[in-house]
Amino acid sequence: VTEPSGQDLPHPGDVLVVGAGLIGTSAGLALRRAGRTVWLHDADPATARLAADLGAGAVGMPDADPTVVLVCAPPSSIAENVHRLQQIYVSATFSDVASAKTEVLLDIDAFGCDLSRFVGGHPLAGREKSGPSAAQADLFDGRPWVLCPTPETSVASLAAVKAVVRSCGASPIVTSWEEHDRAVALVSHLPQVLASAMAAQLGAADEISMALAGQGLRDMIRIAGSDPALWDQILASNAVPLLGALDGLVDDLAAVQDELRKFVANEPATRPGTPALGESVQRQVDIGTQLPRAAGLIERGRAGRARLPGKHGASRVDFSTVQVVIADRPGELARLLVASGDAGVNIEDVAIEHSPGQPVGLVELSVRPEFAQQLASALAEAGWTVHG
Amino acid sequence: VTEPSGQDLPHPGDVLVVGAGLIGTSAGLALRRAGRTVWLHDADPATARLAADLGAGAVGMPDADPTVVLVCAPPSSIAENVHRLQQIYVSATFSDVASAKTEVLLDIDAFGCDLSRFVGGHPLAGREKSGPSAAQADLFDGRPWVLCPTPETSVASLAAVKAVVRSCGASPIVTSWEEHDRAVALVSHLPQVLASAMAAQLGAADEISMALAGQGLRDMIRIAGSDPALWDQILASNAVPLLGALDGLVDDLAAVQDELRKFVANEPATRPGTPALGESVQRQVDIGTQLPRAAGLIERGRAGRARLPGKHGASRVDFSTVQVVIADRPGELARLLVASGDAGVNIEDVAIEHSPGQPVGLVELSVRPEFAQQLASALAEAGWTVHG
Repeated sequence: VTEPSGQDLPHPGDVLVVGAGLIGTSAGLALRRAGRTVWLHDADPATARLAADLGAGAVGMPDADPTVVLVCAPPSSIAENVHRLQQIYVSATFSDVASAKTEVLLDIDAFGCDLSRFVGGHPLAGREKSGPSAAQADLFDGRPWVLCPTPETSVASLAAVKAVVRSCGASPIVTSWEEHDRAVALVSHLPQVLASAMAAQLGAADEISMALAGQGLRDMIRIAGSDPALWDQILASNAVPLLGALDGLVDDLAAVQDELRKFVANEPATRPGTPALGESVQRQVDIGTQLPRAAGLIERGRAGRARLPGKHGASRVDFSTVQVVIADRPGELARLLVASGDAGVNIEDVAIEHSPGQPVGLVELSVRPEFAQQLASALAEAGWTVHG
Repeated sequence: VTEPSGQDLPHPGDVLVVGAGLIGTSAGLALRRAGRTVWLHDADPATARLAADLGAGAVGMPDADPTVVLVCAPPSSIAENVHRLQQIYVSATFSDVASAKTEVLLDIDAFGCDLSRFVGGHPLAGREKSGPSAAQADLFDGRPWVLCPTPETSVASLAAVKAVVRSCGASPIVTSWEEHDRAVALVSHLPQVLASAMAAQLGAADEISMALAGQGLRDMIRIAGSDPALWDQILASNAVPLLGALDGLVDDLAAVQDELRKFVANEPATRPGTPALGESVQRQVDIGTQLPRAAGLIERGRAGRARLPGKHGASRVDFSTVQVVIADRPGELARLLVASGDAGVNIEDVAIEHSPGQPVGLVELSVRPEFAQQLASALAEAGWTVHG
């Protein structure tokens, strides 16, 4: 059932990594870990030397054809590199790591590259830091790595790149470049735009709003700390699918907007900007759904969220939470999790609710529903302040 | 510097809690914990009895005037309850716990209640569960509890309700009802609509999209599991401020949409739905900002996010993260946090990255920047697989 890990594979030939940044150097480290021979090339020789010193491979271009050339250079220089190196290494297969695939394919094709020896790639792994010094041998462990063959990619070429991906510890997912670009537009690029848009509304907010902000909002805008220049490139490189995803979302929001506008207009007596005190207003008792479109959107959201796969690729489990109040000092969380481990229950997730102005924390332990009672009882017996 | 906790306060009179649901019963438990006398009334006598059995107070209506009557009944019945009980308890101050304040004030005024003895209230605490059995004595500990005096509220009435809030363990925040409603529209109701709208887009998404979804998206739509019927009421009760907040957000998204549409239209050769292979397309090298509005929104989002206050009401600290790879089995996280405690470093937050398809987890420990190196070194020395 499980795929062989990189360590179990044969070592089918050398890999030349072009571009020794975070991704290239991490790939080198992972491939070396799997026992493969890695060559490192970078436009900046010092960068390649640093990557080599870190253990990511040997600086230089091999004399004999490598099996795979992994181009980890910036998107705008991928095609040029592939075109040049395909003429030197006439039997090697080429791949890249750009986060939007259609643009790369267009470039590769425009440069007249050999499409039979090219497979587009996108490892879904990364860090906020960049450069070879931020590289990690386990950066790709267990992460998806999408592969997009061209219409002409040979079976052997796809197999060679798949083997590299597995050597890196990642799970290859083969799909078309359109499907890939549509998917990342929906699950990566649209969420970034939304998180930023929500966070942007806080720019002019008053202090009361800030004081009332809770964990839901914090979680929602966590990714809004991203780099504008980087995201300008990413969004521009995937503009068509992103626009499609954004159109769908804005349509849904516009429907709610429209419904709210009508709702407000229809109940003028009870919803002024400032209440006119002294007016005798007989309020009707609310019955049934007042905002059917908004309620429908929330219902659809619940269904959409339930489709997300859970841990280890299994279908999503709605974990139960066990809440525990702890003192906010070093070691308390550890003591709590020791106690949880003693209870033999695997903690699926941990969330810490920060209580403003008070030196206690509320910890939410997520566990499989069948273990919640067991954990709560064990912690309570051990003297913790537990809530179901 | 610190406010006295509920336990340290004198016991200034009885509290009558009307409505023994989650909030009413939790308030009763908290007030009892602080040594105050609590009476419980509910339209359903069995509910009041259950709350009393849980320790939230005594069932019944006091003969003498209570100091404060805390109406925790559904929003549509608040005014009726206040009006009726103000005629029985002619010296008592009244408050409520509804999540939108302007509607309550309009109702209270329409019923001809004594506004000098009323203070609107909203505890920012709650659970996904409801009813007295879900109640917790510490539900409000350290949480904000907004108080909105009417234009006629007496100084003594506000002080009495403030004392109740402090007895419950919460931090009173006094503001106007308009400010309150605008604030919750922005930091609570708008995020709910957005999270639901994002999650709703996943309803028709393909399997590839689901496979590529990462932690950023998961965090963003965590609150999309909410109950549509409940949120229909909440959104309708705060329709005017919500519409204002939604208008601002949709305007920002529409600007990005417009920019993307023009960007796509201006580069037809490089951005078709399906690449026309074989065409000779000379791609220009990207220089400068391609999507200035999108980049500007992301920049504004970064600034808006930085305004959120951090833990304990202090200004936000950008914590450093120390990443550790652990085996995904009971006790591992505990062992890690024990080791962190041994290092004397307070863990501010914990995030667990679930690696699909592989039995290891990546744990991100957030710590104050000055402690990151100390923690990383200590963990590495203890044999953990640590990344800076």
